[in-house]
Amino acid sequence: MPADEFSLIARYFSAFGAGPAVALGVGDDCAILALEPGERLATSVDTVVAGVHFPPDSLPEDIGYRAVAAAASDLAAMGARPLGMTLALTLPDADELWLHSFSQGVGAAAAALALPLVGGDTTRGPLTVSVQVFGALPAGRALLRAGARVGDAVYVSGTLGDAAGGLAVLEGRYRPEPEAAEYLEQRFFRPLPRLQLGMLLLAEAHAAIDISDGLLADAGHLAAASGVAVRLDAGRLPLSPALAAHPDRDQALRWALGGGDDYELCFCLPPGATVPAGCTRVGEVLAGEGVLCPGFDELAGGYRHF
Amino acid sequence: MPADEFSLIARYFSAFGAGPAVALGVGDDCAILALEPGERLATSVDTVVAGVHFPPDSLPEDIGYRAVAAAASDLAAMGARPLGMTLALTLPDADELWLHSFSQGVGAAAAALALPLVGGDTTRGPLTVSVQVFGALPAGRALLRAGARVGDAVYVSGTLGDAAGGLAVLEGRYRPEPEAAEYLEQRFFRPLPRLQLGMLLLAEAHAAIDISDGLLADAGHLAAASGVAVRLDAGRLPLSPALAAHPDRDQALRWALGGGDDYELCFCLPPGATVPAGCTRVGEVLAGEGVLCPGFDELAGGYRHF
Repeated sequence: MPADEFSLIARYFSAFGAGPAVALGVGDDCAILALEPGERLATSVDTVVAGVHFPPDSLPEDIGYRAVAAAASDLAAMGARPLGMTLALTLPDADELWLHSFSQGVGAAAAALALPLVGGDTTRGPLTVSVQVFGALPAGRALLRAGARVGDAVYVSGTLGDAAGGLAVLEGRYRPEPEAAEYLEQRFFRPLPRLQLGMLLLAEAHAAIDISDGLLADAGHLAAASGVAVRLDAGRLPLSPALAAHPDRDQALRWALGGGDDYELCFCLPPGATVPAGCTRVGEVLAGEGVLCPGFDELAGGYRHF
Repeated sequence: MPADEFSLIARYFSAFGAGPAVALGVGDDCAILALEPGERLATSVDTVVAGVHFPPDSLPEDIGYRAVAAAASDLAAMGARPLGMTLALTLPDADELWLHSFSQGVGAAAAALALPLVGGDTTRGPLTVSVQVFGALPAGRALLRAGARVGDAVYVSGTLGDAAGGLAVLEGRYRPEPEAAEYLEQRFFRPLPRLQLGMLLLAEAHAAIDISDGLLADAGHLAAASGVAVRLDAGRLPLSPALAAHPDRDQALRWALGGGDDYELCFCLPPGATVPAGCTRVGEVLAGEGVLCPGFDELAGGYRHF
């Protein structure tokens, strides 16, 4: 059996494995993680494939960072405290330069997001990166998609559409000032999952989801899980200066409504709840089903039946 | 964003999600698993790639079953109680017949191994199957690779070399009687990870590993982690009747020593320990390093420096 170059790849990732919850890290048949008494495990897996989830000429460092951040966003969406992650990496060959760069991105994300790398598997094949994240939740508590109630207000964190704008910049479809272009590309390659916000929202939010498919689609998932309708007000969508500078405001709003990969949170608060800093009210929960967005209902319609 | 046919694939797997530890299954941003008080989480990920880990014309049902069983074997090797799993599936298209068959294999393994499917991710790309398994261990206890002591006896469960023999049958390199051929092929496609044995061994074994790379390689991993040498006696290796019938006994022994994918356990017991049923003493732990196997030292040498 060729326990070959591929088994040696673990060395590239050996520095990212320490953390308070890690009882046993990389190197045995399993990793062992310790939860605090009364906690439960929250876990999710996210896969990115070359040519599907990132432009083919992306820097390996960016691919590594973004794969971890995208997976971590699911912990944020549940309100979970990050514990660690594993990495299943399939790659065509053991290219040292590529691996060095990729591992730097994984390591940067591991440090930034408090997600030590506790295990993994490396196999030969077409480039595929699968990240499994582990978090802790107090027993009986979680930010679910279900739970939104008629009368709740709908909020989002940060600004929306930046990742879609960044992809447009990368693909030459949008050419803003260099500073704005750089900002948008970074928002695409280096998303910041809202882990702290998620934990904060555990106290009062009725429902939450992270925005990975686009606000319309993800608000649609939340509405369907909760058995309600969500009405969004496009005029309230928070846009970054880089996106607000777009000469075609409708295009910017379409990115904010339909573009994925922002990894912000969309959540529902009851009247009177404390609104966390940096979050914007963008709509409300109504009786009914699906997502309404006056002026963009045609766009919203495509997401009604998920 | 095309939350398309691929998001619908979840339906094929929706029936395999129930289990006593599952607080929240498929459908939200994370799954939630509950451990018992005083337990820790054991977790491992295993990826199989088409053309690398299984013959290209394998039945989808067998690919699904084997991917789960191979991952579960890492729980057995730690002595962990199975809790659940997630599946990251990358596939070129949403072929209904393929998916139906594949999901049947996953479901059969989920039921047989008490591993409810609690989450997953499906993406478009070259066929890759990544299974993450979750188990529970009593705090402070685990079957580690490290821990073997000079004077321990080395045991294996079941019979060895059957999966390598099965692969030889599939590839036309070995043509035994039909009944033996069928048995060996099944051992390749439908391995039985030793979950019950692993939990039993927690009480007395000093070290353990599952045999996925082949006995020589895996005993080498165990020896390296423990800082000892392992001497194996090829004459003691347990062979199935189907493999023992091979006209070239040396070939059969080479499969038992070097062939991977049997997913049996190799473990070390101190003198006087109870030997579980169905296990065979195959060697002993000595001072030194590496794996010795008189008569097959050339084969063993290749594995000395992992």
